[in-house]
Amino acid sequence: MAREIRLNAFDMNCAVHQSTGLWRHPRDTSTAYNTLGYWQALARELERGLFDGLFLADVVGVYDVYGGSAEAALRSGAQVPINDPMLIVPAMAAETRHLGFGVTANLSFEPPYTFARRMTTLDHLTEGRVGWNIVTGYLDSGARATGKVKQTAHDTRYEIAAEYLELVYKLWEGCWEDDAVTLDRETGTYVDPDKVHRIQHKGEYFQLDTIFPSEPSPQRTPVLYQAGSSTRGVAFAGANAECVFIAAPTKLQASKNVIRIRDAAVAAGRRAEDILIFAIMTVVTGTTDAEATEKLDEYRRFTSIEGALALISGWSGMDFANAEPEAILKLVPTNAIRHDHNDGHTPYGDHNLTIAEAAKRVTIGAGGPVVTGSPATVADAMQEWIEDTGVDGFNLTYTVMPESVTEFVDLVVPELQRRGIYKTSYAPGTLRHKLFGSGPRLETPHKGAAYRPPS
Amino acid sequence: MAREIRLNAFDMNCAVHQSTGLWRHPRDTSTAYNTLGYWQALARELERGLFDGLFLADVVGVYDVYGGSAEAALRSGAQVPINDPMLIVPAMAAETRHLGFGVTANLSFEPPYTFARRMTTLDHLTEGRVGWNIVTGYLDSGARATGKVKQTAHDTRYEIAAEYLELVYKLWEGCWEDDAVTLDRETGTYVDPDKVHRIQHKGEYFQLDTIFPSEPSPQRTPVLYQAGSSTRGVAFAGANAECVFIAAPTKLQASKNVIRIRDAAVAAGRRAEDILIFAIMTVVTGTTDAEATEKLDEYRRFTSIEGALALISGWSGMDFANAEPEAILKLVPTNAIRHDHNDGHTPYGDHNLTIAEAAKRVTIGAGGPVVTGSPATVADAMQEWIEDTGVDGFNLTYTVMPESVTEFVDLVVPELQRRGIYKTSYAPGTLRHKLFGSGPRLETPHKGAAYRPPS
Repeated sequence: MAREIRLNAFDMNCAVHQSTGLWRHPRDTSTAYNTLGYWQALARELERGLFDGLFLADVVGVYDVYGGSAEAALRSGAQVPINDPMLIVPAMAAETRHLGFGVTANLSFEPPYTFARRMTTLDHLTEGRVGWNIVTGYLDSGARATGKVKQTAHDTRYEIAAEYLELVYKLWEGCWEDDAVTLDRETGTYVDPDKVHRIQHKGEYFQLDTIFPSEPSPQRTPVLYQAGSSTRGVAFAGANAECVFIAAPTKLQASKNVIRIRDAAVAAGRRAEDILIFAIMTVVTGTTDAEATEKLDEYRRFTSIEGALALISGWSGMDFANAEPEAILKLVPTNAIRHDHNDGHTPYGDHNLTIAEAAKRVTIGAGGPVVTGSPATVADAMQEWIEDTGVDGFNLTYTVMPESVTEFVDLVVPELQRRGIYKTSYAPGTLRHKLFGSGPRLETPHKGAAYRPPS
Repeated sequence: MAREIRLNAFDMNCAVHQSTGLWRHPRDTSTAYNTLGYWQALARELERGLFDGLFLADVVGVYDVYGGSAEAALRSGAQVPINDPMLIVPAMAAETRHLGFGVTANLSFEPPYTFARRMTTLDHLTEGRVGWNIVTGYLDSGARATGKVKQTAHDTRYEIAAEYLELVYKLWEGCWEDDAVTLDRETGTYVDPDKVHRIQHKGEYFQLDTIFPSEPSPQRTPVLYQAGSSTRGVAFAGANAECVFIAAPTKLQASKNVIRIRDAAVAAGRRAEDILIFAIMTVVTGTTDAEATEKLDEYRRFTSIEGALALISGWSGMDFANAEPEAILKLVPTNAIRHDHNDGHTPYGDHNLTIAEAAKRVTIGAGGPVVTGSPATVADAMQEWIEDTGVDGFNLTYTVMPESVTEFVDLVVPELQRRGIYKTSYAPGTLRHKLFGSGPRLETPHKGAAYRPPS
């Protein structure tokens, strides 16, 4: 096969994720996000389309920067109401055999020991199909929801994250030897105690002294996803991430991000190709270009500008409620999400955009590229993105659920397969093995592998 | 129907829960606890037997009091390796329609905001079938695993718990009005912001200022389980618990516990019958008494004394590694689990037991009553327990999985039904409604109901 396109579906345990207002569409079912059946049907559909994974975003807190309150977010349903992302995974895993699950968890709000046990549990239950999207938070409302006055400072969050990772590597990789679980029914030995090592950690932000309570799961450390686009975020990804998600509106910005991420991997002693990079993309397809364009036009009748503004204000940490819609959107560094490397551009467009234009773009696919057309048109665009930017694949946002996924699977997947740039069946093994052809464990030179005891 | 017997299966996300060593039995499958199929099969079997719920215990930390290390626990597999209990619930919920799930979560290690969101998520996904067993921890190893030097003092743990409950009542009951989610597709209003109220809490141990991010689930507050047997624990149960689990080896001790718990409910302004009390019980059955006795004798050939001693030392906070086996077991108050009201008796037997005898009893069903016999014998014993002690039902431990459950469902359930003391079909509605015939929400005089905003 030529270079294989990797695909995640990009979703969140809520109705309104990256396209605001579309829950109003008569065919949309996303308001059923709080039922098991909704997620199980989605998982089956994604596996039918041979998706590598379902990437589940999350946010702790609500979008209350816009206008200084959560009113706009609540009214438009912008990422609120929202439920926990981890808990939908086991029921989806039961419906599938190969689909991977990238679960966002915010380390600022997850005590390492119980969090590490949760991820190990998921890795057991999915038989090695789980990933962790490492985030540190960006909403002050999330900090206030958990007893702080505001977010920890941006760069300090990454210092804490680095130590947190060291700690969970120790728990996942360093405690149990591979053959510690003996299950010797004759002697009654469940575990060989000599092969379970006490973890003692005393750092700047965390300390613990414990035996990790879970036996090793297929992958031990889940596949590590990350999405930081700041200077610190990219360095962190270079050292730790196996998959990186980027939100770039154009190929130009994407290709710059790709270079920086691959350079960061090399700087951390890894190979440039050790990180798979997924770019945000929204696809609206139909049997012809005209049909697809008509569909997008129809979708646009349901979008919510207010919801988009609530999201932009939350992401950027800047309140645009009283800004002039025709003013040029300028993002300045705040304590929220930073895009240090965007050369003055926003993640919503390559050129100077007014606030109104940016909001309009965000209503469909959060301002990422919206590819609209027949299967051939979509496949062309995806191929060009891969070739021109060096990304490995895409995080596909949805517009109207489930038709957004169903039409992609029915129309675009066969086209990609015909071109020999998409798999026709799943590879065997764990998620790490499927993505990298190696594993199931982290391997040198990834730093996590260094924490494993000699077996 | 005469007074209906309530039944929970008592389990934990590990192989060795309340009977040590039986994982070695040739027919036991409990070492598959880390697979989805194991739990899904159990859930189907419990629903076939019309069990009210699956009560999932948990522990944070490992049993390392015995001999000052985790060696004995690891070797015998005593509640280690262990995985997270919440994450098996969604897959079991997908396989069942009525079975309830009581999930243990230790509030010492769960930040209130993210925890409350998790329970709400579970309540949504199960359509109102979830309960929370409130625990505060007893192992110093759990505290050390989470960055403390040792457990918070016993009574302080209950002070913290009281404030934690107040806080989660505010989040679950006080933030969203019942009709806040409008889903008005015409106007584009997902949520009416005027019906979502900001929660501000500034207490001794917690503070937060937030909007709860999840829309109201069927029960809002999950059904509240509790198991404390100390003076503080019983008072806490009286004020908060809807179901209480007691571990009494004899009817005499059980009946004393029942009186204290019902008195505590009344002292908290509730009715004595507002709390359902479940006693620990282990059943070994067969078509005849002789067959059942033979089976128990066979099980005993696989039990682990070392595992039992590891558990007793962990529960009591006392190291019995160097104690004389023939010495009388005397429990003194420590910072671990306390049984202030046991009049000098242990939870393992009514009379003075040697350490060796206590350990032997703990190997099957943790020292609770072991009822062995034909379906008629078992039904007689259950009826006597109900009548003599005032408990409402039982938390049934398993011996050998799955036969422990399967035989109970095949043999004992029909006998209980014939006697008219067990349901022949599930009642409709949420777990709270099934258990109490009311709900789905907490109702006055339960204190949680007072936090609900007027609708």
